Amino acid sequence: MPANPVPQPRDARSQRYLAIREASRALAAPLSAEDCALQSMPDASPVKWHLAHTTWFFENFLLAPHEPRFAPFHPRFGYLFNSYYEAVGARHPRPLRGLVTRPSLAEVLEWRADVDRRVLEMLERGLSPAAHDVFQLGLHHEQQHQELVLTDVKHLLFQNPLRPSYREGVAAAGASAAPPLRWLEHGGGVVEVGHDGQGFAFDNEGPRHRAWLDPFRIGSRPVTCGEYLAFMEDGGYRRSDLWLYPGWAAVKEQGWEAPLYWERSDGAWSVFTLGGSREADPAEPVCHVSWFEADAYARWAGARLPTEEEWEVVARSEPPDGARAAEGRFHPAVAGSAPFAQATGAVWQWTRSAYAPYPGYAPAAGALGEYNGKFMAGQMVLRGASFATPEGHAR
Amino acid sequence: MPANPVPQPRDARSQRYLAIREASRALAAPLSAEDCALQSMPDASPVKWHLAHTTWFFENFLLAPHEPRFAPFHPRFGYLFNSYYEAVGARHPRPLRGLVTRPSLAEVLEWRADVDRRVLEMLERGLSPAAHDVFQLGLHHEQQHQELVLTDVKHLLFQNPLRPSYREGVAAAGASAAPPLRWLEHGGGVVEVGHDGQGFAFDNEGPRHRAWLDPFRIGSRPVTCGEYLAFMEDGGYRRSDLWLYPGWAAVKEQGWEAPLYWERSDGAWSVFTLGGSREADPAEPVCHVSWFEADAYARWAGARLPTEEEWEVVARSEPPDGARAAEGRFHPAVAGSAPFAQATGAVWQWTRSAYAPYPGYAPAAGALGEYNGKFMAGQMVLRGASFATPEGHAR
Amino acid sequence: MPANPVPQPRDARSQRYLAIREASRALAAPLSAEDCALQSMPDASPVKWHLAHTTWFFENFLLAPHEPRFAPFHPRFGYLFNSYYEAVGARHPRPLRGLVTRPSLAEVLEWRADVDRRVLEMLERGLSPAAHDVFQLGLHHEQQHQELVLTDVKHLLFQNPLRPSYREGVAAAGASAAPPLRWLEHGGGVVEVGHDGQGFAFDNEGPRHRAWLDPFRIGSRPVTCGEYLAFMEDGGYRRSDLWLYPGWAAVKEQGWEAPLYWERSDGAWSVFTLGGSREADPAEPVCHVSWFEADAYARWAGARLPTEEEWEVVARSEPPDGARAAEGRFHPAVAGSAPFAQATGAVWQWTRSAYAPYPGYAPAAGALGEYNGKFMAGQMVLRGASFATPEGHAR
Amino acid sequence: MPANPVPQPRDARSQRYLAIREASRALAAPLSAEDCALQSMPDASPVKWHLAHTTWFFENFLLAPHEPRFAPFHPRFGYLFNSYYEAVGARHPRPLRGLVTRPSLAEVLEWRADVDRRVLEMLERGLSPAAHDVFQLGLHHEQQHQELVLTDVKHLLFQNPLRPSYREGVAAAGASAAPPLRWLEHGGGVVEVGHDGQGFAFDNEGPRHRAWLDPFRIGSRPVTCGEYLAFMEDGGYRRSDLWLYPGWAAVKEQGWEAPLYWERSDGAWSVFTLGGSREADPAEPVCHVSWFEADAYARWAGARLPTEEEWEVVARSEPPDGARAAEGRFHPAVAGSAPFAQATGAVWQWTRSAYAPYPGYAPAAGALGEYNGKFMAGQMVLRGASFATPEGHAR
Repeated sequence: MPANPVPQPRDARSQRYLAIREASRALAAPLSAEDCALQSMPDASPVKWHLAHTTWFFENFLLAPHEPRFAPFHPRFGYLFNSYYEAVGARHPRPLRGLVTRPSLAEVLEWRADVDRRVLEMLERGLSPAAHDVFQLGLHHEQQHQELVLTDVKHLLFQNPLRPSYREGVAAAGASAAPPLRWLEHGGGVVEVGHDGQGFAFDNEGPRHRAWLDPFRIGSRPVTCGEYLAFMEDGGYRRSDLWLYPGWAAVKEQGWEAPLYWERSDGAWSVFTLGGSREADPAEPVCHVSWFEADAYARWAGARLPTEEEWEVVARSEPPDGARAAEGRFHPAVAGSAPFAQATGAVWQWTRSAYAPYPGYAPAAGALGEYNGKFMAGQMVLRGASFATPEGHAR
Repeated sequence: MPANPVPQPRDARSQRYLAIREASRALAAPLSAEDCALQSMPDASPVKWHLAHTTWFFENFLLAPHEPRFAPFHPRFGYLFNSYYEAVGARHPRPLRGLVTRPSLAEVLEWRADVDRRVLEMLERGLSPAAHDVFQLGLHHEQQHQELVLTDVKHLLFQNPLRPSYREGVAAAGASAAPPLRWLEHGGGVVEVGHDGQGFAFDNEGPRHRAWLDPFRIGSRPVTCGEYLAFMEDGGYRRSDLWLYPGWAAVKEQGWEAPLYWERSDGAWSVFTLGGSREADPAEPVCHVSWFEADAYARWAGARLPTEEEWEVVARSEPPDGARAAEGRFHPAVAGSAPFAQATGAVWQWTRSAYAPYPGYAPAAGALGEYNGKFMAGQMVLRGASFATPEGHAR
Repeated sequence: MPANPVPQPRDARSQRYLAIREASRALAAPLSAEDCALQSMPDASPVKWHLAHTTWFFENFLLAPHEPRFAPFHPRFGYLFNSYYEAVGARHPRPLRGLVTRPSLAEVLEWRADVDRRVLEMLERGLSPAAHDVFQLGLHHEQQHQELVLTDVKHLLFQNPLRPSYREGVAAAGASAAPPLRWLEHGGGVVEVGHDGQGFAFDNEGPRHRAWLDPFRIGSRPVTCGEYLAFMEDGGYRRSDLWLYPGWAAVKEQGWEAPLYWERSDGAWSVFTLGGSREADPAEPVCHVSWFEADAYARWAGARLPTEEEWEVVARSEPPDGARAAEGRFHPAVAGSAPFAQATGAVWQWTRSAYAPYPGYAPAAGALGEYNGKFMAGQMVLRGASFATPEGHAR
Repeated sequence: MPANPVPQPRDARSQRYLAIREASRALAAPLSAEDCALQSMPDASPVKWHLAHTTWFFENFLLAPHEPRFAPFHPRFGYLFNSYYEAVGARHPRPLRGLVTRPSLAEVLEWRADVDRRVLEMLERGLSPAAHDVFQLGLHHEQQHQELVLTDVKHLLFQNPLRPSYREGVAAAGASAAPPLRWLEHGGGVVEVGHDGQGFAFDNEGPRHRAWLDPFRIGSRPVTCGEYLAFMEDGGYRRSDLWLYPGWAAVKEQGWEAPLYWERSDGAWSVFTLGGSREADPAEPVCHVSWFEADAYARWAGARLPTEEEWEVVARSEPPDGARAAEGRFHPAVAGSAPFAQATGAVWQWTRSAYAPYPGYAPAAGALGEYNGKFMAGQMVLRGASFATPEGHAR
């Protein structure tokens, strides 16, 4: 990769900007230009696209309206790297992102350096309140895509019959056991949920509002691979009574018999990780399960998925802790001893709530109003964070 | 159709059974055997299948366990006419229902008569409490399918370029205007929702539970065709900002520009009804809109869809009134003067709530536990009733 | 079915017309209106459609240009029942033919009677030479569709898990053995092929032209089910070296392991016939094999498929004999003792020749030029006739 | 790219080997590793795959059986880079070739160098006759893939909305006009066609055999873009009577209105070439037309496509001349003054003949028998050569 010509910033805000931008580049460092160019399915994107799109976000939403005598780095990159903002104009179809070999990875990195230089200059000059809000959003947006980079790379490498690793020496199976599962009680009643307005939050995290909860209990830590294996060995994928209708249809039509990335090999189950394939570790949290698998497991275990509000009310007592990717493990770690270890950042967790706006939610005006608002249908809510969530980004 | 050999029942319960069963047959009366055999899409079923499946329901769940020396009318009909009950055994794939020409309509009607005779005999002998519950469920199940018969027949007839009518002289445009739209206020707070256990209810209507509502306002009557036309003429189908992402994708990919059954003809909009095609009536409730169209309309109108709980709390003050199909109109009528005319049975109404179990919901044990439980995913909640809802079935 | 109001004709031409038209109706006689309405796949058509389309052919190509004061029986039937004649105008899409319940079978039969009456009147008045050519083509066209009626009904009934029969008591397994296979020698050289202009022929059967043939040998009778079973038992469907590439892809992707209509049942192979399912008869010709299966079988047997010219040169010495459907057997019969029993009408036979115009072929001007010309691509040539070929139609 | 460690060969055979192998590498030279990794459609392959597969061909068919103490360069490359040889074993599915980022391009080039070194050593030791035949086949196989590299790269670059060029400065529009079209007469009769056994030929080019031809005329040079444009402007893509049925279906369903790589831009037609997009040159041969387009054009022009035998008999009088890619033009050149300029290598030409074995054709035994034999179905014959055909490879 080319030398980074960006000057060293002096103030904390500039340092934070550069650290987050550099973290994206560091995620691509173990990868070849070929690794960064490919798209393994329509729902994934090439790493190069992520590096370019996050740069386009700053160029289009921060520099374009706020930089004097703004001109884009390349007149057609806006078309190529806009993701889904209708208000900004036409864009390249998502399933074709993997067919674009030019600009090359090197050119995209040049673009990144150019935008970084101009953003830092703008920071030196000072930001208007409107520009500051976009700047903040851009940083959290970049961190969201850092999670997607690891998710998409993992899927891509899994398509290769050689089962190559993203980086050698990561994602080793742990030596420790998981703590016993305890049930945390909550008495219910009228509770407050949603972001309280202190510090940054995506618009879909607010506004703060009230909800009624009946009394409930919630598990103290994520389900482990060992527990999930017990579900599998008890016929979990063969018992239609455990599944909702569309889930059971998927089991039969697509031949599900284990979570994604699990493969049977000589009688044992191996799991594909960013460090390659290795034996499943019974103490680790199970991950890459679909909502239907999570729901079926819960039914088998005599429980149910929590609602979003239940999860949030309990999690508020726990400090989030999503620093594991930065620690270089690149795989969910065995749950620790925190009282509600579900909330400590090892894996995202499914709830039984559909994704819908909170009462009182209103999208922002203009193109950025499309950031979250228009996806509020047909999806179920994941809460928490995962090993791939950048440090400081979990909430 | 063959003469009905079933003897006239003496008691009220038998009379109610026979009236509901006869209503299904009456819905098929204007149709030829060919009309009853066809399936116009995988999500629809042939009318003959509905007539057979509702009969199978009584034979399989009521007669089989409770009739002495039970034998099925035909050994393979269970395979052909089971809809989705995994616990009962293998079944014919749904998209192939329209390829079964035998048994003929006449044979299915014979089967109906045979089952009716045996159910009436069982009623004379008296029902155990367990049998009584199944009997009640079978009647409501039959009424649900009566709605589907009209829905599916309408879709089938619409595939015919001749745009034939189900029955002549029905679904005429009304002469009256819709009452003005008023906004009903509700102060919110902790409310009780769900069925209270008095009288019959499907298992997904309960149990009764509490919820918190913020203060809200709700429209007094359904949106009219005239109001919806204003949305269309204001570019409703061309403004991406009004639509959620999957809805907008459907607008573009499938070329939506009006609700299903609307066709442009010589500059005006005609609407296909069970009486054939005719001009859209601006006073009538708009119907056959998808959830995404309802959501986009609400956004355009500066409103939002109600939650299920909001709708229910207001609707409880209004008596349901779903008798319009029985009245022979076969199309939604112009809203009347009831305070909350949304709840009076002209059209089903979309809410913003996803279909999920109420707190405390537990499916019944055995095959009948599949009745509602396993569909609780990936669907949005419709509340209310429509012109096609049989009298006495709206709740 | 309604009484046929068509008067009895006096002359031979009228009698032939009426006999052929009546044969179509007779094929539908064992079927219900439901049987006649359904379409089991996009490549098939409902029987009612065949009955209507052949009627449309006479109405549109014979009556419309030649009848004084012509008016169609129904103004929209042309749209519904045109098959593929672009020059005639827009038409109903083929895969949707099975969604048209109206007109009913009874109405289509009324239309048939009306057209028959008018054609017979025209015959009484005498035909111009141009009208005579269309009349002749219409009769052969009707006979082609009679084959398709049986083919399509068989496919439809096979979709029904009850495996119903078209008519009871037909297609029984034979008692006799097949004659031994002999190899007929031909010395090659310059030969003449194509129709010689005497008597009716479809335009794609001519013109007569010369071809060079190397010396070859050709089998004396069709391959039997017993011989084909030996191929299957020798791993015919598991040996990639026997198959051309697209054929092997189909074997793997679609799981072929026997010809269409063969089903394994308790260790033996049963064959679905127009008389229902029964054991495979080793003496009968194997049928419903795709071109790739025929080609793979020939390779396994150390032979190859004949070219169209080879088949024709040998077949010319044999009188065709396609009367088996009329005899009421409704299934290929065991080969007889004719020297080249391949040509005697039990089953159509694949050649290795692609369908392309003969040297000198030119389509007719106007819509009827579309009859054969535009299909001359992407298909392999079948020669001969089958049990389903009407008497007098084999050539 | 890495330095090539292969020693300079001394004899002509080794020099020819190295020249052909080097030509493949040279084709990849203008491309980045990203360009070489992507697959733009299931029918295309990544350039890296072509470089690897041709290397696998020599390793698997020449080195494996003939090298003492053979061991493959990498144990899994055989799985990844076998194309379609069933007899050799399981292989990676073709549509997934574009998802393999590892081995990298650099590793594949190392593999090439390793195999080249070992083949040259084998050549020094001398080849058995059997090894010599495989060696010859491997060279022609490599040349076939050189054509595919350019074809596949062109398709890939065309997917990029930036319309990048493979190499700057190639494929410029010519200055010269095309010579007038003349019609060459042939008297027909019994002719000999097929390869006569002198020099190398693919097995599907023989054996030599006789055919009968009626007298015919054939055009002296390929159809030009200017002539094809006249067809387009005369409504060629809107007149159903010019098209065979599947071709017309494609016109309507896929919206064909010009050949692949033609785009309308500001009222004029531009053509995408390996040098980028530029205006269509009326003198150049039209290329990238499907068989159906060629057939429709011929019908519009009052002609027909030639049979394979007609083309071959006339072409035999002309020396082939396929050296244009080597000349660095990378686009079809305007026809020259040769009497039958169709045969001089500018573009491949469609015939009306389906691809089928010549009389007397028999595949080789073993895996190499799959080379051509199993594709002899469902394709039409292209004859000639194109600018992309390597020098010395046209026949």
